[in-house]
Amino acid sequence: MYYVNENIRDLYRVKFHDERAGVLRLDMNENPEGLPRQFFDSVMAKITPEYIATYPEKDRLARLLAEHNGLMCENISVTAGSDEAMRLIFQCFGEQGKKLLTVTPTFEMYDVYAKMFGMKHETIEYKADFTVDITDILQAVDEETGIVILLNPNSPIGSTYEEAAVRKVVEQAASAGAIVVVDEAYHYFYEPTFMPLMKEYDNLLVLRTFSKVFSMAGLRIGYVAGGTALIEFIEKAESTFNVNNIAILFAEEVIRNRELTADLIETEREGRRWLAARLQEAGYKTLAKEGNFVLFLPRKDSQVVVKELKEKGVWVRDYGRGILKGWIRVSTGARSCMERFWEALQEVEG
Amino acid sequence: MYYVNENIRDLYRVKFHDERAGVLRLDMNENPEGLPRQFFDSVMAKITPEYIATYPEKDRLARLLAEHNGLMCENISVTAGSDEAMRLIFQCFGEQGKKLLTVTPTFEMYDVYAKMFGMKHETIEYKADFTVDITDILQAVDEETGIVILLNPNSPIGSTYEEAAVRKVVEQAASAGAIVVVDEAYHYFYEPTFMPLMKEYDNLLVLRTFSKVFSMAGLRIGYVAGGTALIEFIEKAESTFNVNNIAILFAEEVIRNRELTADLIETEREGRRWLAARLQEAGYKTLAKEGNFVLFLPRKDSQVVVKELKEKGVWVRDYGRGILKGWIRVSTGARSCMERFWEALQEVEG
Repeated sequence: MYYVNENIRDLYRVKFHDERAGVLRLDMNENPEGLPRQFFDSVMAKITPEYIATYPEKDRLARLLAEHNGLMCENISVTAGSDEAMRLIFQCFGEQGKKLLTVTPTFEMYDVYAKMFGMKHETIEYKADFTVDITDILQAVDEETGIVILLNPNSPIGSTYEEAAVRKVVEQAASAGAIVVVDEAYHYFYEPTFMPLMKEYDNLLVLRTFSKVFSMAGLRIGYVAGGTALIEFIEKAESTFNVNNIAILFAEEVIRNRELTADLIETEREGRRWLAARLQEAGYKTLAKEGNFVLFLPRKDSQVVVKELKEKGVWVRDYGRGILKGWIRVSTGARSCMERFWEALQEVEG
Repeated sequence: MYYVNENIRDLYRVKFHDERAGVLRLDMNENPEGLPRQFFDSVMAKITPEYIATYPEKDRLARLLAEHNGLMCENISVTAGSDEAMRLIFQCFGEQGKKLLTVTPTFEMYDVYAKMFGMKHETIEYKADFTVDITDILQAVDEETGIVILLNPNSPIGSTYEEAAVRKVVEQAASAGAIVVVDEAYHYFYEPTFMPLMKEYDNLLVLRTFSKVFSMAGLRIGYVAGGTALIEFIEKAESTFNVNNIAILFAEEVIRNRELTADLIETEREGRRWLAARLQEAGYKTLAKEGNFVLFLPRKDSQVVVKELKEKGVWVRDYGRGILKGWIRVSTGARSCMERFWEALQEVEG
């Protein structure tokens, strides 16, 4: 019998087999509409048969992202979504048997990668007021800690971290021999960033994705930024051609187009405010913090509401346990999409 | 100081920083022209802003590929090029300290992944007549062997393996507790396949890519086929969204279009025959076996020829050591591209 890596052998994976074409997708924090048609068409027009036949080149995008963030090329590695960056971080810096530290609830893939690379996942609970006590995190960072991940803002709650708190975590992690990853997936919707801190700390990585505000979850592109030593290790672990060239082209074009970014932010913000106002007026307990999503506590059982909305072609997600048990998270986007959701919800809740 | 995986720390990587837009790309076995314009346009017309904003779904493509190859869905995993499949194979089945066995020369990434996952790479040399003695491979497969990779046809030489030989290798590997990977990157250019053997052997994996005949190296898509147990482990190790949805769409469309495949094969074959004939007529020592490439021994130093061709916008590759020292490999494609290469070569060789 052949050898199988035991971390993988013992790993339980939830696989998606959904077909979501044509539905109102408010379950995974994508942009339900996508990029403006005119911009989209202008980028598509640049793609040729020769271009897709050619192995991808990503240096130019890395230079652009470095400039965009006030960093050097050597501080950036472009990856297939921030998801691939996470995988590479665990592969490089995730020591078998050490701890991954995150809050709970948070993005589910951190737990998958921790197990895939043989780490123990320790979680810090939210308090009843949907805040995290930073001293709980600091107390948990010890010699057994390998990686700390802070998603900021943290989905699904939308809470954020103050700079002073992040500094303390990074410093404590440094003295414990651990690295800290700040996942800024929802950046631009939420402007503050901890990217500049990497000039002070050599154990800090920041993740960004083009799947959220930039509306290209299907293209799989993101990046990781950090000190040159950390990035050099990550680049060693990468496949030669890890990112496709359509994604590279779209990423270059959106980064160059600041007006587009402003429009995408504004469109989502208008929709989010409108929906939060409707939910609150209707008396729903609502959480509308940072990021392109809103949470509310439905009157009926959340599983029933999710199922009945799905029957109407509107997909949202609920939580079966923990502090969000019974809550529903709705990804937010253009007001027209929010109106379609609101109408469907009223039909379901009666 | 933070922990760094020692295999990655010690890994030496060659990174490409080329910009090849606009050159005649005959150095990496891509299609220098790309897909026919009409077909390309018809697929591009199906892509919408919503489609690229949506996390990819690959089940439908897996079903299509299963049907295409007379297998079940559970025998297929779609990956970001066959390159990602290789990485996952090493991650799942590459035991630290065990041997990877390949011939030399072969595709360079096998060696990189072996080192990345802590394996020792043992290589079998070609004989002077550019054939491999299968008994050399059989003798090398022992209890220390973890993975055997046979690229068939093997780039850069173009040599192929007989079914009886592959069966012996797979059987010997099975008794040694090793898996065998047959990399069929150049399938369709070369029709025979060992895909059906996976019904008999549970330690056999077959790789396919859309980067070669299907002309979409830039999109990063391929797949691995094998017994359900092997594929289940690979799927556990995959990221949730490992393949982008433009690649999925193009892959579906080319697989459905058998006439297109036949045209792509024929276009390349005509170009390859034409070039091989010119090289032979001109007295060059030539190797034109299987796969979309031809080798020849230039009159001048191969490094000089590669450099001077590059100055003319024609990229090919040479080999600095081993049995191909001094040879040049030219990727083959449409006759018009071969004519451009031939003209440039005559200018360089004088």
